[in-house]
Amino acid sequence: MKKEFAVIGLGRFGGSIVRELAKQGLEVMAIDNKEERVNEYSMIASHAVMGDTTDESVLKSLGIRNFDHVIVAIGDDIQASILTTLILKELGVQNITVKAQNDYHEKVLLKIGADTVVHPERDMGRRIAHKLNSNSILDYLELSDKHSIVEIVAGEGLVGHTIIELDIRARYGINIVAIKRGDEINVSPQASEMILKNDILIVIGADSDINRFEKKLMSI
Amino acid sequence: MKKEFAVIGLGRFGGSIVRELAKQGLEVMAIDNKEERVNEYSMIASHAVMGDTTDESVLKSLGIRNFDHVIVAIGDDIQASILTTLILKELGVQNITVKAQNDYHEKVLLKIGADTVVHPERDMGRRIAHKLNSNSILDYLELSDKHSIVEIVAGEGLVGHTIIELDIRARYGINIVAIKRGDEINVSPQASEMILKNDILIVIGADSDINRFEKKLMSI
Ligand SMILES: Nc1ncnc2c1ncn2[C@@H]1O[C@H](COP(=O)(O)OP(=O)(O)OP(=O)(O)O)[C@@H](O)[C@H]1O
Ligand SMILES: Nc1ncnc2c1ncn2[C@@H]1O[C@H](COP(=O)(O)OP(=O)(O)OP(=O)(O)O)[C@@H](O)[C@H]1O
Ligand SMILES: [Ca+2]
Ligand SMILES: [Ca+2]
Ligand SMILES: [Ca+2]
Ligand SMILES: [Ca+2]
Repeated sequence: MKKEFAVIGLGRFGGSIVRELAKQGLEVMAIDNKEERVNEYSMIASHAVMGDTTDESVLKSLGIRNFDHVIVAIGDDIQASILTTLILKELGVQNITVKAQNDYHEKVLLKIGADTVVHPERDMGRRIAHKLNSNSILDYLELSDKHSIVEIVAGEGLVGHTIIELDIRARYGINIVAIKRGDEINVSPQASEMILKNDILIVIGADSDINRFEKKLMSI
Repeated sequence: MKKEFAVIGLGRFGGSIVRELAKQGLEVMAIDNKEERVNEYSMIASHAVMGDTTDESVLKSLGIRNFDHVIVAIGDDIQASILTTLILKELGVQNITVKAQNDYHEKVLLKIGADTVVHPERDMGRRIAHKLNSNSILDYLELSDKHSIVEIVAGEGLVGHTIIELDIRARYGINIVAIKRGDEINVSPQASEMILKNDILIVIGADSDINRFEKKLMSI
């Protein structure tokens, strides 16, 4: 059974969701009240429809309640975002994800029944701040408040040594779960694997241990 | 040596960068031409300054060239974003990261010397689309076009079995690199580890293998 998505609001955020879902071969209906935005997505989405979603009859006529998941990506017009969400909920849509502009907006959305509220600008600001704070961390996945997986450039001090020689596990409490070398990814590096220049290590562990490891890398 | 950051534009994106850098104990100057935004960050940033950054003398008087890294988070006013970036470059700022509104904006920014161009709404749209496409994938880190690390809810078919019993490595070509259980994270699960209800598995592998594993999980 294929899931059916509808995205309301085709700005950069909503538009990017439509593109990515379509790229993954999924059915997605794209909705906006601006004709020019609808035209932009007519070849990308399964259906692109013009309509003001604060009008209940518009959403009804699109059969919106038959969609598994509706994403409300209206940004600046907070009232339109709230009203649209309220109508979706009343029409019985099962999964509603809404973009919020601020904490107050989020609170209202959750109260009226949004299932998931997202803050794209805020979350991406956080992600980018993490990367800015480090010369060697390229990307990361936060596992918890205290644990992460990070992509880290192999420092000078590591190059030419094997994983077992470096004894990273015992000395830093972290694990190397993969090594990126050019276009190749080794997802289960052996202890005997030698680290080469320009290798990118995928490392898992406590943030404090990863920090310690990174500082050490930098100071060598 | 502490790095010094300056963030220009205190919208949701720029503001979030300021908060996160400050939270990490880093020095950050926050700049905006709207008084109300500057006031909002006066207690959060090391310094919060009001000024129009399209005015060269404003940036000079802030000693902007002494900052290691300047982030331009001006959004809607593309001209102001471009002009600010140009002045930063001419003043000799070493690292300039700029938020772009679209591909055309990005091209101009790179031509005039921006070191990194980011698209927060677009990138977050992609991330969210990935999660929407799956009931079990909670978060992910893209390692390459073809490989990822994903956080995946342990399906019914796995619960009560040990990792070695399931033979996931041989059957799906993927590795379990960690298990989240409540607040605890086990970053090097043994082969004898039994998977419990509500466990979240952190899995590394080729996207196609992860997809296959996920489909299997769902169908059991
Ligand atoms: N009532 C409505 N019905 C349908 N679409 C709407 C409605 N109100 C706004 N939209 C659409 O939502 C989209 C996103 O709105 P927003 O004002 O956030 O634009 P944006 O800043 O370009 O978005 P983004 O921050 O994602 O780049 C716009 O394309 C807008 O036309
Ligand atoms: N020339 C300028 N000098 C300094 N700050 C500026 C200049 N032009 C715009 N800004 C500030 O940049 C910030 C971000 O601008 P934008 O128009 O994108 O606001 P926003 O939509 O609230 O941002 P976001 O999408 O990050 O939430 C605003 O606070 C604005 O006052
Ligand atoms: Ca916007
Ligand atoms: Ca907007
Ligand atoms: Ca925005
Ligand atoms: Ca804006």
